[in-house]
Amino acid sequence: MTRPQPGAGSAPRRGRGRPPAAERADGPGARERILEAARAEFSERGYDKTSVRGIAKAAGVDAALVHHYFGTKDEVFAAAVEVSFEPALIVPAVVGPGPEGVGERLARYFLDVWEDPATRAPLLAVIRSALTHEAAAKVLRGFVLRRLLERVARDLDVPDPRLRAELAASHMIGIAVLRYVIQVEPLASAEPEAIVALVAPTLQRYLTEE
Amino acid sequence: MTRPQPGAGSAPRRGRGRPPAAERADGPGARERILEAARAEFSERGYDKTSVRGIAKAAGVDAALVHHYFGTKDEVFAAAVEVSFEPALIVPAVVGPGPEGVGERLARYFLDVWEDPATRAPLLAVIRSALTHEAAAKVLRGFVLRRLLERVARDLDVPDPRLRAELAASHMIGIAVLRYVIQVEPLASAEPEAIVALVAPTLQRYLTEE
Repeated sequence: MTRPQPGAGSAPRRGRGRPPAAERADGPGARERILEAARAEFSERGYDKTSVRGIAKAAGVDAALVHHYFGTKDEVFAAAVEVSFEPALIVPAVVGPGPEGVGERLARYFLDVWEDPATRAPLLAVIRSALTHEAAAKVLRGFVLRRLLERVARDLDVPDPRLRAELAASHMIGIAVLRYVIQVEPLASAEPEAIVALVAPTLQRYLTEE
Repeated sequence: MTRPQPGAGSAPRRGRGRPPAAERADGPGARERILEAARAEFSERGYDKTSVRGIAKAAGVDAALVHHYFGTKDEVFAAAVEVSFEPALIVPAVVGPGPEGVGERLARYFLDVWEDPATRAPLLAVIRSALTHEAAAKVLRGFVLRRLLERVARDLDVPDPRLRAELAASHMIGIAVLRYVIQVEPLASAEPEAIVALVAPTLQRYLTEE
């Protein structure tokens, strides 16, 4: 379900988690394996039916190790989501090069993430979960969006930067819903570049123009 | 739960063959009572757990009368959604006055519908249902969005009118998700007019500018 994450290929395959197997299963790739398992579990089962125990089992580690690396289920959820939309990745790539062309870079970055079925599945699961479970909405609101949008807004030289960053994000989320979930035509089959061409000026305006 | 709709009192009441119980409960207002019950049921229970039988019970009519007026569960669902976003209402109000100011009128129309808790609840239920059940997504895609967006696109004098109407719709849906469901701040607490002011130029561009 998920594409390999940086470092996933080098994960050691020793051991299946049970106490005191947490230590045996630990190693350079355990954290990434847990994240991968978390994304797969949240994608397949939804927020509600996913448990730390289930994630641990899928990752072949002890539940204690999941808690050790991430904390609560909510924190695993946030970490699993942030793999795709991590401020540390998105901000330098999109906002870093400066205001010119930021709308186009954001639209393309976003569509790239969604066009890849491996990253699309967990993101859809996140949106579904957030729309149906207040706990998941809270995680998305608190951990993910706040961090990401604050970081993007910090680099904007416009009035109401947070509100504008959120409007840009809302457009991207709405496109995802109509294109990938509800699948209205012609949006569902449109070439990504055709969408980028139409949407980039909108994002550019929100992020850079008064 | 629902606000009165135009024409609610003027629909013909004479039916064709249904059980005697249906006739007793029939009369001026039965159709509207069913629609109101349907919106409440879909809002509270979600698409999956709502049944024609349950809607009929809540409306105080026989299930046969629900089938008589609307057909299948999917068709009741579509009718319940279309009460808020009916092409016959939205198009004259928003697109009718001509291209100038259409973005602002659309943004304001949309926010009015969402700001009213009575119309917000069933719409949230629709989006939730569409994101979690393919049957509901199909209804939204087929009955509601196709009819609404086709009608809006028909009056647009731009290239790719359908795609542009969908991009405008995607923005409105994304704002609803972030503002009312995930409730990110400051978008969740922003004054509707502040949102209209920022979003109107986006919609205007999609709907009227090459």
